Amino acid sequence: MPTFNRIAVVGAGLIGGSILLAAAQRGLAKSYAGWSRSEKARETLKNYQVAEIFEQLTDCVRGADLIIVATPVDRMREVFAAIGPFLSPGALVTDAGSVKALVLSDAKVLPRGVHFVGAHPMAGSEKAGAAHAAANLFQNRLCFITPTGQEDPAAVKKITLFWEALGSTISTIDAAKHDQIVAAISHLPHAAASALMLAVQAAPGFQVQAAGQGLRDATRIAAGEEHLWTGILLANAAHVIQGLKEVERQTSALRQALEQGQADKVCEILAQARLARQSLDRSHEK
Amino acid sequence: MPTFNRIAVVGAGLIGGSILLAAAQRGLAKSYAGWSRSEKARETLKNYQVAEIFEQLTDCVRGADLIIVATPVDRMREVFAAIGPFLSPGALVTDAGSVKALVLSDAKVLPRGVHFVGAHPMAGSEKAGAAHAAANLFQNRLCFITPTGQEDPAAVKKITLFWEALGSTISTIDAAKHDQIVAAISHLPHAAASALMLAVQAAPGFQVQAAGQGLRDATRIAAGEEHLWTGILLANAAHVIQGLKEVERQTSALRQALEQGQADKVCEILAQARLARQSLDRSHEK
Repeated sequence: MPTFNRIAVVGAGLIGGSILLAAAQRGLAKSYAGWSRSEKARETLKNYQVAEIFEQLTDCVRGADLIIVATPVDRMREVFAAIGPFLSPGALVTDAGSVKALVLSDAKVLPRGVHFVGAHPMAGSEKAGAAHAAANLFQNRLCFITPTGQEDPAAVKKITLFWEALGSTISTIDAAKHDQIVAAISHLPHAAASALMLAVQAAPGFQVQAAGQGLRDATRIAAGEEHLWTGILLANAAHVIQGLKEVERQTSALRQALEQGQADKVCEILAQARLARQSLDRSHEK
Repeated sequence: MPTFNRIAVVGAGLIGGSILLAAAQRGLAKSYAGWSRSEKARETLKNYQVAEIFEQLTDCVRGADLIIVATPVDRMREVFAAIGPFLSPGALVTDAGSVKALVLSDAKVLPRGVHFVGAHPMAGSEKAGAAHAAANLFQNRLCFITPTGQEDPAAVKKITLFWEALGSTISTIDAAKHDQIVAAISHLPHAAASALMLAVQAAPGFQVQAAGQGLRDATRIAAGEEHLWTGILLANAAHVIQGLKEVERQTSALRQALEQGQADKVCEILAQARLARQSLDRSHEK
């Protein structure tokens, strides 16, 4: 693993904070820098005692040879624009955003002579914030890397080795394909769980005290921070909209089968869903 | 706790099997009887070595003073009709069905002189079958008891004490209200998780290998056995249909906000869902 002189993490919530902790624990750089917009988050980061924490974004990235932008995706463009003039020539910039096509496009504001490679560690949680960060957050998790083919191969290699060093399994993939995959397995479930939670709350029989593990699990991801998720859903809107239309179609098909008392049809729908769900567990057990 | 001479459990899957194990462990009767339609389940029940297991339903209930019908809800009417002539005068019949208005109506086929009290232990799982039964399944779980007001109060008291003896917290409630509650917190989430699972599977980007804990949790209950759930959803169809319509409305509202790029509206929907979901955890922590 080639190490870095100085790693700067920009936007240190759950993901950024965990990157600092994980990189420091593994000694991937000689020094570390961190920045967060929030004073509270900066205090949390200081308490890690692994990085120099800055109030000014531009101070954070100065002199760093690896800069990881871990802000919400809808803030990345302004971050790239702001840090560009302060980056060292040859510096390597990457991100940890849940959407990749938009971020690759936003990264075009970075100056020539700076390398950018997009990445997405699949390690979120409904528990947001640097206070929940952990050095092992990326261990045995999937990390997507989405080169465009225009990058310096050495830069792609460095980012790949970086995430491998944090314990992740790498999937190198086209950004558009990435966005389609995460729409299906992450963004669509988030949107659907939110809609379900609101429907449950609106139901005349809803009683918090009666709620069991089934409802809790089915809606857990809906507890995610809304600004973060608004940015993600809008940045991947085309795929998410397509998925939500299919949720509406499937929900309506099941409802109509119930309305018409078609036991065979209801049973067939539920059987297909069971088989699909069981395929997730078989994959997990591999 | 008044004990029974002989407890008969009819239809011994996860719930029925667990009732036999739990009652035997706590010594709630002098003897136990069990019946299942399935030979494989009967073998599993025999291996518990706590109950006499019968191939004939009518043999199972003969001489029992407490009969617990734990079949799928859409089979209860035929079970009540079949066992009626073989019950001892004064025998107490109860059930463990997820829907109560229909079961109370079905129980009217029981002969005069036999007591019926409806019950619903909230202790299901997507892992069906007697092989997953456990003596502690009902410990610290909610159990609904739904008297009509026409019962012998002593019979209601006995059923209440029985479920308390298995470790459950009792909620005594009107059957119609019960069905409304479980539609909101259990049947609707099951139907919606099934629809989501099918939509995820249909999404062009779906990759089993990329699925994480969020998707797994959001769809876990969709792995439930389809015949059991077809019976439940149809038996509680009016409430479930109403709930699914609301899921469709909420899903469509979120989709339209995304289509129109209304960040504030998306954020407001997600914030409401987050607050609703967090209220479940606060209730849990009490």
